[in-house]
Amino acid sequence: MSLLVTGSIGIDTVETPFGRKENVIGGSAVYFAYAASFFTPVRLVGVVGEDCPPNFLDVLEGRDVDTGGLEVRKGSKTFRWHGSYVKDMNEAVTVEVDLNVLAERAPKIPEAYRDSRHVFLANTHPVLQQQMVDSLTGPKLVVADTMNLWIQTERPEVLKLLKRIDGLVLNDGEARLLTDKKNLIAAARDVLSMGPKFVVIKKGEHGSLLCTPRDTFVLPAFPAEKVVDPTGAGDSFAGGMMGYLATQGNVSPATVKRALAFGTVVASFTIADFSLAGLRATTREQIDERWHEFKQAMSF
Amino acid sequence: MSLLVTGSIGIDTVETPFGRKENVIGGSAVYFAYAASFFTPVRLVGVVGEDCPPNFLDVLEGRDVDTGGLEVRKGSKTFRWHGSYVKDMNEAVTVEVDLNVLAERAPKIPEAYRDSRHVFLANTHPVLQQQMVDSLTGPKLVVADTMNLWIQTERPEVLKLLKRIDGLVLNDGEARLLTDKKNLIAAARDVLSMGPKFVVIKKGEHGSLLCTPRDTFVLPAFPAEKVVDPTGAGDSFAGGMMGYLATQGNVSPATVKRALAFGTVVASFTIADFSLAGLRATTREQIDERWHEFKQAMSF
Repeated sequence: MSLLVTGSIGIDTVETPFGRKENVIGGSAVYFAYAASFFTPVRLVGVVGEDCPPNFLDVLEGRDVDTGGLEVRKGSKTFRWHGSYVKDMNEAVTVEVDLNVLAERAPKIPEAYRDSRHVFLANTHPVLQQQMVDSLTGPKLVVADTMNLWIQTERPEVLKLLKRIDGLVLNDGEARLLTDKKNLIAAARDVLSMGPKFVVIKKGEHGSLLCTPRDTFVLPAFPAEKVVDPTGAGDSFAGGMMGYLATQGNVSPATVKRALAFGTVVASFTIADFSLAGLRATTREQIDERWHEFKQAMSF
Repeated sequence: MSLLVTGSIGIDTVETPFGRKENVIGGSAVYFAYAASFFTPVRLVGVVGEDCPPNFLDVLEGRDVDTGGLEVRKGSKTFRWHGSYVKDMNEAVTVEVDLNVLAERAPKIPEAYRDSRHVFLANTHPVLQQQMVDSLTGPKLVVADTMNLWIQTERPEVLKLLKRIDGLVLNDGEARLLTDKKNLIAAARDVLSMGPKFVVIKKGEHGSLLCTPRDTFVLPAFPAEKVVDPTGAGDSFAGGMMGYLATQGNVSPATVKRALAFGTVVASFTIADFSLAGLRATTREQIDERWHEFKQAMSF
């Protein structure tokens, strides 16, 4: 079943202990779409400016990603992010960020995409995320990401959004900020009381945590000895998870656990190289193989 | 099979967001011995001063812990530690520490204990740890803990120790300090090249990591919504792990994985209350039950 993603498309400059890459493709929607396309067709909604290099999205060529929802906006500039992991591979320091087109009106969800059954709303203004939910005609599973900026400045809108989605994906710091709970399980339980049926807390190198009203599931990250560039790990995780879920007919605890493990594995390929290079060097067969290896490693 | 532990016995004062306890029993050997005694008989070697309340070690009454190796040293004072977790439940701030008797000569391993097959050398000066290895007549499995102080000030002796033990247990910060590697898997591999056959890195709320020359195994902590006092979690983890290993005839990867899971589960009972109260309220049946629950939760 088709999976819709809306999120950012960015021109990134990234520094890590392994080097520096300038003006490479990034953005939540791009990582998500590539990761999810290992599992299911993806519909991408996003906006770039007219400064975007014409072949920039060629990275998605040959993938089952429909870019009909991509808007190239005249007179606008593409979102740019410059981050550094030189001091700490677990947390990017933003050297410079230019929201550019992301600070303008949201891209429109094309008419043909409104029937999407599985939807991922990557991090953006919670009012825009609600507008996107409004424009869907019969979604089965809507999952959103958010960030500290909106939790701090648009809390009432974040809370309204939470009542309209099935799942929330956010990182540990954001979960603590949203709930004012230090303990992550307590924080996740609090988020559940705000509306969603499940919450996934991403803990970076420490893996992820899933909470539903009945279950708590903790999964470590796939053990990686060499991390080259962590950019996009969280979006790839969400892409792998949602991509797998879109192929299943249910969100039973067992299915969501398997989905989390697929997300974990896909993210482990992302961080092995800069930008999209890690994912581009990966096949579905490698993902399945590593998934089985991970499953085996986690059983005792 | 009998398990020998040498380590500290302390009078603790602990503050956490859940309250303050003064002059309660603590120390690595006490937590370890109690935790391991769920699985196997334990021989405890440690030293206190004459200020130690006469019934202080009654906490071990009824447990299968032989305290024949406990020395009450005349003219000396017991080790005291005052720590606070009020700001961060994941890292104790030491408010005050008085090494007292721990800064003097080590307690002697009784003649009757020298044949111990399984040995855990809790954190102390690495020269003393080596002397203890010297005094054993035929150990099968020797595992040690260490700390940042010795890594920084007695590095050559820590390195000598590493060549004489089967396993090393240490926390993430210590592993990074010892190896100068930020990535924990790379750090664990480095530790292996220094001598031990396996290394376990404790990551607090993020669980633990086991590395052998062939395998890497990552295990999250048992999901706990309420942590009252994290003191002794690492020693209880080691006690549960070594206690289980002492009952097994091998240290195969599968056995060590199960042992790690037992350590994880035992530690989850420790942190549910202050001092030894969490462990004292626990039965072997509850440990087995939670272990199976954990095993089930970790499979996908």
